[in-house]
Amino acid sequence: MSSKNVFFFGSKTEGEAGNKNLLGGKGANLAEMTKIGLPVPPGFTITTEMCIEYYKQGKKISDSLLKEIREALAKVEKDTGKKFGDANNPLLVSVRSGARVSMPGMMDTVLNLGLNENTLKGLIGATGNERFAYDAYRRFIQMYSNVVMGMNPEILEHILTGTKEKKGVKNDTELTAADLKQMVADFKAKYREKMKSDFPEDPMQQLIGAISAVFGSWNNERACIYRRMHGFSDDWGTAVNVQAMVFGNMGEDCATGVAFTRNPSTGENKYYGEFLINAQGEDVVAGIRTPQPVNKDSVDPDNPLPSMEEVMPAVYKQLANVFDILEKHYKDMQDIEFTVEKNKLYMLQTRNGKRTAMAAVKIACDMLNEKLINEKEAVLRVAPEQVDQLLHPMIDPKASKTLIAKGLPASPGAATGQIVFTAQDADEWASAGKKVILVRHETSPEDIKGMVAAQGILTALGGMTSHAAVVARGMGKCCVAGCGQIKLSGKTMSVSGKTYKEGDIITLNGSNGEVYDGNVGKITPELSGDFGKIMDLADKYRKLKVRTNADTPHDSSVARKFGAEGIGLCRTEHMFFEGDRVVAVREMILSSSLEEREKALAKLEPMQKQDFVGIFREMKGLPVTIRLLDPPLHEFLPHTDAELEEVARNMDVPIDMLKSKSASLHEFNPMLGHRGCRLGISYPEIYKMQVRAIIEAACELVKNEKMEIVPEIMIPLVGKKEELAIIKEYSEAEIKKTMDKNGVNLKYMIGTMIELPRAAITSDRIAEEAEFFSFGTNDLTQTTMGLSRDDSGNFLPDYVNKKIYSVDPFVSIDQEGVGELMKISIEKGRKTRKNIKLGICGEHGGEPQSVIFCHKLGLDYVSCSPYRVPVARLAAAHANLMS
Amino acid sequence: MSSKNVFFFGSKTEGEAGNKNLLGGKGANLAEMTKIGLPVPPGFTITTEMCIEYYKQGKKISDSLLKEIREALAKVEKDTGKKFGDANNPLLVSVRSGARVSMPGMMDTVLNLGLNENTLKGLIGATGNERFAYDAYRRFIQMYSNVVMGMNPEILEHILTGTKEKKGVKNDTELTAADLKQMVADFKAKYREKMKSDFPEDPMQQLIGAISAVFGSWNNERACIYRRMHGFSDDWGTAVNVQAMVFGNMGEDCATGVAFTRNPSTGENKYYGEFLINAQGEDVVAGIRTPQPVNKDSVDPDNPLPSMEEVMPAVYKQLANVFDILEKHYKDMQDIEFTVEKNKLYMLQTRNGKRTAMAAVKIACDMLNEKLINEKEAVLRVAPEQVDQLLHPMIDPKASKTLIAKGLPASPGAATGQIVFTAQDADEWASAGKKVILVRHETSPEDIKGMVAAQGILTALGGMTSHAAVVARGMGKCCVAGCGQIKLSGKTMSVSGKTYKEGDIITLNGSNGEVYDGNVGKITPELSGDFGKIMDLADKYRKLKVRTNADTPHDSSVARKFGAEGIGLCRTEHMFFEGDRVVAVREMILSSSLEEREKALAKLEPMQKQDFVGIFREMKGLPVTIRLLDPPLHEFLPHTDAELEEVARNMDVPIDMLKSKSASLHEFNPMLGHRGCRLGISYPEIYKMQVRAIIEAACELVKNEKMEIVPEIMIPLVGKKEELAIIKEYSEAEIKKTMDKNGVNLKYMIGTMIELPRAAITSDRIAEEAEFFSFGTNDLTQTTMGLSRDDSGNFLPDYVNKKIYSVDPFVSIDQEGVGELMKISIEKGRKTRKNIKLGICGEHGGEPQSVIFCHKLGLDYVSCSPYRVPVARLAAAHANLMS
Repeated sequence: MSSKNVFFFGSKTEGEAGNKNLLGGKGANLAEMTKIGLPVPPGFTITTEMCIEYYKQGKKISDSLLKEIREALAKVEKDTGKKFGDANNPLLVSVRSGARVSMPGMMDTVLNLGLNENTLKGLIGATGNERFAYDAYRRFIQMYSNVVMGMNPEILEHILTGTKEKKGVKNDTELTAADLKQMVADFKAKYREKMKSDFPEDPMQQLIGAISAVFGSWNNERACIYRRMHGFSDDWGTAVNVQAMVFGNMGEDCATGVAFTRNPSTGENKYYGEFLINAQGEDVVAGIRTPQPVNKDSVDPDNPLPSMEEVMPAVYKQLANVFDILEKHYKDMQDIEFTVEKNKLYMLQTRNGKRTAMAAVKIACDMLNEKLINEKEAVLRVAPEQVDQLLHPMIDPKASKTLIAKGLPASPGAATGQIVFTAQDADEWASAGKKVILVRHETSPEDIKGMVAAQGILTALGGMTSHAAVVARGMGKCCVAGCGQIKLSGKTMSVSGKTYKEGDIITLNGSNGEVYDGNVGKITPELSGDFGKIMDLADKYRKLKVRTNADTPHDSSVARKFGAEGIGLCRTEHMFFEGDRVVAVREMILSSSLEEREKALAKLEPMQKQDFVGIFREMKGLPVTIRLLDPPLHEFLPHTDAELEEVARNMDVPIDMLKSKSASLHEFNPMLGHRGCRLGISYPEIYKMQVRAIIEAACELVKNEKMEIVPEIMIPLVGKKEELAIIKEYSEAEIKKTMDKNGVNLKYMIGTMIELPRAAITSDRIAEEAEFFSFGTNDLTQTTMGLSRDDSGNFLPDYVNKKIYSVDPFVSIDQEGVGELMKISIEKGRKTRKNIKLGICGEHGGEPQSVIFCHKLGLDYVSCSPYRVPVARLAAAHANLMS
Repeated sequence: MSSKNVFFFGSKTEGEAGNKNLLGGKGANLAEMTKIGLPVPPGFTITTEMCIEYYKQGKKISDSLLKEIREALAKVEKDTGKKFGDANNPLLVSVRSGARVSMPGMMDTVLNLGLNENTLKGLIGATGNERFAYDAYRRFIQMYSNVVMGMNPEILEHILTGTKEKKGVKNDTELTAADLKQMVADFKAKYREKMKSDFPEDPMQQLIGAISAVFGSWNNERACIYRRMHGFSDDWGTAVNVQAMVFGNMGEDCATGVAFTRNPSTGENKYYGEFLINAQGEDVVAGIRTPQPVNKDSVDPDNPLPSMEEVMPAVYKQLANVFDILEKHYKDMQDIEFTVEKNKLYMLQTRNGKRTAMAAVKIACDMLNEKLINEKEAVLRVAPEQVDQLLHPMIDPKASKTLIAKGLPASPGAATGQIVFTAQDADEWASAGKKVILVRHETSPEDIKGMVAAQGILTALGGMTSHAAVVARGMGKCCVAGCGQIKLSGKTMSVSGKTYKEGDIITLNGSNGEVYDGNVGKITPELSGDFGKIMDLADKYRKLKVRTNADTPHDSSVARKFGAEGIGLCRTEHMFFEGDRVVAVREMILSSSLEEREKALAKLEPMQKQDFVGIFREMKGLPVTIRLLDPPLHEFLPHTDAELEEVARNMDVPIDMLKSKSASLHEFNPMLGHRGCRLGISYPEIYKMQVRAIIEAACELVKNEKMEIVPEIMIPLVGKKEELAIIKEYSEAEIKKTMDKNGVNLKYMIGTMIELPRAAITSDRIAEEAEFFSFGTNDLTQTTMGLSRDDSGNFLPDYVNKKIYSVDPFVSIDQEGVGELMKISIEKGRKTRKNIKLGICGEHGGEPQSVIFCHKLGLDYVSCSPYRVPVARLAAAHANLMS
């Protein structure tokens, strides 16, 4: 632990931007901004380590820490010339959280701290503004009694609402100093009634309470959920920033705002921000009043509010200058908070701005062009997790649609779903497998769960920096915000003269803010322009190859366009289901002798061959790994009685025979049943047919189209070397016969999937036969964890909630368990066959954290579904650049 | 490879008993007997390595080996004074197989080799017995053309039968020299017709053919099945023994026989054997003529044939002397073959005799008392695999029974089943889950498969050393042999005036040879007498503790009597199924709220507590490991519609609710589903109830009965440390509350099963929470191999047949795969918690090879079903004595 636990910033700043882990992002950047001469109110940061210490001490602040706090506070007093708790010129402070990464709105804040009956008088004296002072005091009492004392906020809010009603006013701002003074007295009386004690007068007691509350908020439910969602560690803790208050709410020459140095939605190199005159910072983020744009460029022609550039030109100039300094200094787009107190600008926060995938790509390319960053940095600026967004469906321009409303394009992409009106409904409907659009007046941190569950979010209030907008962008989720045309009432939404009920379907276009009736067609954009540039750079800086999982020429073609460098998994059984082939497949299964089975297989063989011809041709000589039949045979039989009867009629076999065959193939645990290479052991004729079809296809293309093809034949579910040896032996005999027949001499490889723990553990033996390994991490996860993917839905969410798994192991590789088996397998496999070719073909192959893990393991390639190929390419580059 | 490949025995013997791996058992013992001066015809042994070499060379015998054979043959000629292929005094030889372990009747033999038209004359001259010589020649031609040339034996047998018919005789012995001479001519003509070449005249060519045939017979089907059944390696190979012929069939002063130095069925210290006058060795084993007893003691009062002791007293005296020498020399009961040629005794084989479990125990104890062997040797003399036989059911003396026949008590135990008349039927019926008794005239090596499948074997012909008797004893399978009262005709059996059809039920008593109508009640014997003595010695020499898997006070009591030292696995769910408890369990499952669930659990709690009181009391302070609820909840719900309706009526809930709950609990792969500790995560109230019941029970006994109890609470299916941590935390809170309430301070342990690969791989982390590990190798095998125990029946036999697995991995631990994970788990577990308590509670805990493996791994205990406890105790002693 550091011996210094409190870092001052002001006349003699002690921290800097590099200290984020210790000071939190906010604290480190406040110190940094102070250092580079920007106008920052002085203050100090209590380190994140003290947060962890706070919990260790049983939620107590130690005396030694208190001493450091007092010393830092004295420096703030010196810098500001004010005194904390002073009756004449009192220092008021804000107390804010600040973890090493931004967790917007998740933790607590207390403003205007230091006010009591005494200092209130001082504040009135110093500002000459009694109304402002009482307003600050009543805000402080409201915030403190809720945040620090845990009082239900509605109790005091009720008094506020009552007062406004009594006075016949609508806005808080219309209340007079006298109204507010009375309200303070009422608040305190109510506080006494509820808390059985007086509202704390001692500023130091207030400060300790607020610091404790911020530390405490590190573990509130929404912060925990947020961390889990983003994979942040619970052990990081939050820092606490105590800073001299400046006021955006002292009059019309005051303001408060948030802004980005570039457009966070499109990436356009134009300032982008919102502000409110005569307001405190929380008012902007809370989305209660619709804020005005910072610069003229951002004025919405449909709703032309005056910009700061026009209203406060001098301060705007200062602000623009600060933007430029910050971008040059941080070399990244900044997200800042500022306050204007009596025409003087104060910076309250800067941080790297969150952005959409589209903006990330554009900003990275622009900054590369501006020579602000280099190629490697440009690649690292686009998170692989985000790229998915760019591959998300967009509204098809050619689709017919009925526009019903237009709001702000808060987070791009398109989404269709059934309307729900509460976060809880969103969560429940989604759990029941429904796709929903969450429609709210505005969202708050309590809605996180519902936002996660929804396809898209539509809010009636709030701007581009409202809670809904910020959080949705972070999630890569489509969002239309501030759509004032919709009128919400209970569980209905009225718009364009129509009333939508819960369950009705709408479509959102988060890229332009449009809302449509019903389900509107969507398309997926291509890789081109800036995105293409980033992808090219990713290819330049990655080592890991990226293949695709594709079973048809069409999928192969899509994947090629997304940059796939081969096929890592071609599932032959998918071909078995197509059209009338399944008839032949069923005939094969129902055969009671080898001869009959071979007869049925002979019908399938030419079709299989044509499949492979198509795929090989599409892949133009790139490697293609073909997996022989994997699923249990009963998967090909119909399941209901009605279907069975139809098949029996079509095939002209007695229904009883079909039923009894179907029953005899039934398995209690098909995942662990008669499948994979076990079929190749029981029915060699099936695999022989498939091997012939592969080799025939390759020979044909080699002969007729002069292609170079090295087929990779993959045997699934091998657990013991001997299985592979037997199948390899008869397959090689078929291969030889087929090549001889065609007069072609092909190179080929025979390898296996590693998808059973036993295969991983005995990879040294298996590598004696296998020329390549492909990790089938779907099944390997199921068997290693003893967890059925199909059945885990009942309890896996609970497991993630209870932090047993930090992330669904079917989404991101369980590195500690499954990953350890992969490591063992690789070590043992290489011991036997030094240059064994290694890949992964589970769903994980397109998940960024898993791709990075595969890079570290030293695999040759990952293989994933076509649409995830770009994600994998970028993740592979990140892995290499970060290693 | 050894540089010497052929070992001579005779005047200057080159091998000895210690050379079994190289010379095979037979060869090594022939050398040994020669060395200690016993009368053995000279000969030589070609090593087992040459068998492997034979296959490597593409089934050829190399020139250098041929040279060694010629040299050894010359020494035999010198010793016997005869010459191989000589027209005056020809040397005839036998050519026999001999692997390192005895595989009776599985491989080939050729006798009388060296005969041709020339040497035949020499043999007539030397013996003055034309009939004998022609008989030898026709036997040789029959044997050679079948064994070496692969001719269907029925072709020549047909000529023999035809000749007998023509001559109007019944037995071969009634044929004259002239008849046999004609038959030889007929045989040769038929041979020429079938084989398109003359019967080989060159003795050296005959010899090479016979040696090749014996090597070749190593890989015939029945030898392969036998090896697989006994777990013998295919790589051992067989030696070939070429030995000067002696003749038991030269007249009434000749004989041949087999004998044991003690009774192989009871273990009694009395010689036990059978012989035939004027016969060749194969005639005894083949069971065609009923042989006479060797000694008077063995005469069957019901069928008093004259013994050798009476008929050939001088030779018998020689033989008895040889028995005594052999037992003192080998310090074990011997199984010998002998031939008497013109009143001179020759020893053809000795080996340690196979014996029943009962005999093994008695012989070991007797030899210990006789000071022939020491305690450790006595323990090692009883194979743990055999002990099972002693725990097999016996006929209940008090049961009412209808005796229908009596045969020889060929292999002890009792068995009931449906009659089948062919080995194939036995195999098919058993595969269909039926229990069968195989009834045959006599069995032959072709019947092995059916014998394996049957509960017991009944034969009409053959003695105590017939094929059926020897093989059944080796398998520990009940057998009644030589039961002449039964008359077989097609698929019926007539006895005692009743005709039994295929499918009718009978019961065998292999211990006294009785056959009963229908199913007769059985009992299990106790551990006492000699068996008790061996078990006591086993306990003295073992390190591994042996616990039992027991769910009830009754099972616990049985296991205690069998020597269990605690309970390694008490499955609480078995208690959930009992009586009307399942009603409360179903109520619990159907609850839709925590409150309802707790109400239902409250009904179960006192019952669970009483279960534990009963078990703790029975185990008298020995350790008891209790596993909390493991199976998925749907297992407790009824499955058919009719059952569901009944339950709905009984529980007064709507049938639809029951159906929908049942459907919602359905799982595709229940083995990998919502079970084990996952239930404790989803429904802590269930585990809390169980923990309270355990601790309440212990507290009650500690308080009221002054017992000392350290309950071991076991959490199933843990895959990640956090699961265990959460359950441990709430369990310890319940434990503390319960102890406080009772004013008792208990020691207790909380541990986990290691039954998922992930748990094994992360055992270092899991050991942070677990105070003990118990390997649940049933589920660990299923997940490691991706193999469902319930579903593998369709293909696992094929896997064992194709030698992919040498043994069913659910019977004996897969040491290479599952065992490797156990090793990793133990290493990692001990890294975190040096003295972590380690056990195994899968079915493997009672399987000898697995017990030995567990000893090597350094486990503290194995736990198995009560009846296997003695097996495990003995195996543990073997493991320790052999290490």
